[in-house]
Amino acid sequence: MKNLITDVPGLKVGNAEDARVASGTTAIVFDAPAAAGVAIPGGAPALRDTGLLRPEMTVARVDAFVLSGGSVFGLDAAGGAIAWLHAQGRGVPVGAARAPIVPGAALFDLDHGGDKDWGRRPPYFDLGWAAAEAARLDFQLGSVGAGCGATTYDLKGGLGSASAVTSNGFVVGALAAVNAAGRATRGASPRFWAAAYERGAEFGGLGEGPPSDDALVFALKRDQPANTTLAVVATDAPLDKAQATRVATMATVGFGLAVRPAHAPTDGDVVFAASTGRAARAPELCDLAEIGMLAAECLARAIARGVYEATPLPFDGAMRSWRGRWGSRQ
Amino acid sequence: MKNLITDVPGLKVGNAEDARVASGTTAIVFDAPAAAGVAIPGGAPALRDTGLLRPEMTVARVDAFVLSGGSVFGLDAAGGAIAWLHAQGRGVPVGAARAPIVPGAALFDLDHGGDKDWGRRPPYFDLGWAAAEAARLDFQLGSVGAGCGATTYDLKGGLGSASAVTSNGFVVGALAAVNAAGRATRGASPRFWAAAYERGAEFGGLGEGPPSDDALVFALKRDQPANTTLAVVATDAPLDKAQATRVATMATVGFGLAVRPAHAPTDGDVVFAASTGRAARAPELCDLAEIGMLAAECLARAIARGVYEATPLPFDGAMRSWRGRWGSRQ
Repeated sequence: MKNLITDVPGLKVGNAEDARVASGTTAIVFDAPAAAGVAIPGGAPALRDTGLLRPEMTVARVDAFVLSGGSVFGLDAAGGAIAWLHAQGRGVPVGAARAPIVPGAALFDLDHGGDKDWGRRPPYFDLGWAAAEAARLDFQLGSVGAGCGATTYDLKGGLGSASAVTSNGFVVGALAAVNAAGRATRGASPRFWAAAYERGAEFGGLGEGPPSDDALVFALKRDQPANTTLAVVATDAPLDKAQATRVATMATVGFGLAVRPAHAPTDGDVVFAASTGRAARAPELCDLAEIGMLAAECLARAIARGVYEATPLPFDGAMRSWRGRWGSRQ
Repeated sequence: MKNLITDVPGLKVGNAEDARVASGTTAIVFDAPAAAGVAIPGGAPALRDTGLLRPEMTVARVDAFVLSGGSVFGLDAAGGAIAWLHAQGRGVPVGAARAPIVPGAALFDLDHGGDKDWGRRPPYFDLGWAAAEAARLDFQLGSVGAGCGATTYDLKGGLGSASAVTSNGFVVGALAAVNAAGRATRGASPRFWAAAYERGAEFGGLGEGPPSDDALVFALKRDQPANTTLAVVATDAPLDKAQATRVATMATVGFGLAVRPAHAPTDGDVVFAASTGRAARAPELCDLAEIGMLAAECLARAIARGVYEATPLPFDGAMRSWRGRWGSRQ
């Protein structure tokens, strides 16, 4: 186990970023089309082709998900992944045509530094192609991919991931690009909100610590819809779209376990859920509850890891990182 | 401040229960019609007249909410509250008629003890009338109202409430009837999941405690859709239906902060949100984020208090209470 979403058999992850632009894209590419669902608890989402994920809609499986910086421009990234997948012969066959299915979501990093003066053609289509092409079982965390330009209230954000196994052996994993309006840490301390769910010292091992009034101060990055934590959860349990939607809904808890506040009107929190179906047996109702619970907790851990692993952007005035502020290990 | 949802000016709460049936009903009655919204994150809800709460539906305000035991039968309780409100001259005038607007939700306590062999006419209509008639600023917590027959995985559940004030002075409150499939405590310990948000010793003051593998064991009451935590959050900030819906969505985080797992396929988690509009000024976007955050945290505290204040039902084999297991104070 790598403690990455790629511990779930049947998917790969690729990152691409442009250091000059200070933004990037992450693609989650399924080896074979995967049943999927979505939950959209945030108040300011930027989404592409999520309507088809509703259980009553006809298309049942997706080829990939794309998470991207770039806000409204970043929704181009799914187009690049679609083009790359098409070039590989992927996609729903319709007559002689093939249509790769790639729902996407974007976070707002347009004023977090970097050169966003890209003229007529934003870079996200090409970043989406590159991210899909780069998909592997191993991938980097921190200030990469969709997490490249991400920030939280007072620390650099980034890309995080985590995995777990249910008591009956189903594998669950999560991936998050953390650009929250609020904080992933308890006030100005180095301790993460998600500490109760930490495994080993995957985000520093500092624990919950003593109660602190500072932890409960209300802190919000800005009073505009310009933030967003993006997430994907996955399992090898065979699920249909309705079950995947239940897992996505349960996974929304993970935002609340790891970020304060969560689902703010200025956040576009969204979580995609997918089933690669590689496990040998179907889950019972109780398995589904445990998969959803672990999806939430993997998501919380992935959010903490995304902040913990982040490095600052190379610009004057760039948001400081957790490691820059608190040291690489405590 | 009473640390109850009735700290929000403009609403009252009434409980009614039938000890022989071991079930009951809670009514939240607004002094004047209140703008409202709802979020339904659970997988097995039992709901009445929630469709009208969507922002695009025409009816803009509600007269009351009714939470009840009794599962599908308990949805009768809203009818009793409607009849009582009508007798008081309340309701939307339509020609010579008046239609009190009372969305409701029910939890499953049908096999938690008590005599449910009620023949042709279930008791919930009358319980709903009695609960609405009993509405006051002061009300009891624990095994009363909709919490009368409620349980969690291994402790008696009950009715809880809590309140808070935003940094700009808006009042926020929550009410919960806790019948969760999972646990509100960390494993078999007396410590509540919501401990980080506790104020004073409102649910024992035991804190988060040391990390524990036992806390992270997966525990689910049963593999059937027969549980559910019901909640109401309210604020005096003037909100429209869309803003109330955002507060309801943010408040769903409170289930996750207080119960593990939350939003299970076997839970019917639902949270109603209402605005009494008594505050002098309208909230900014940042205020709305803080109101939603405190709604989530008040809900988490209300859930913990509901379990903390519960007393066991007077039947052989009834689920033990937190106080019975851990003493009235530690």
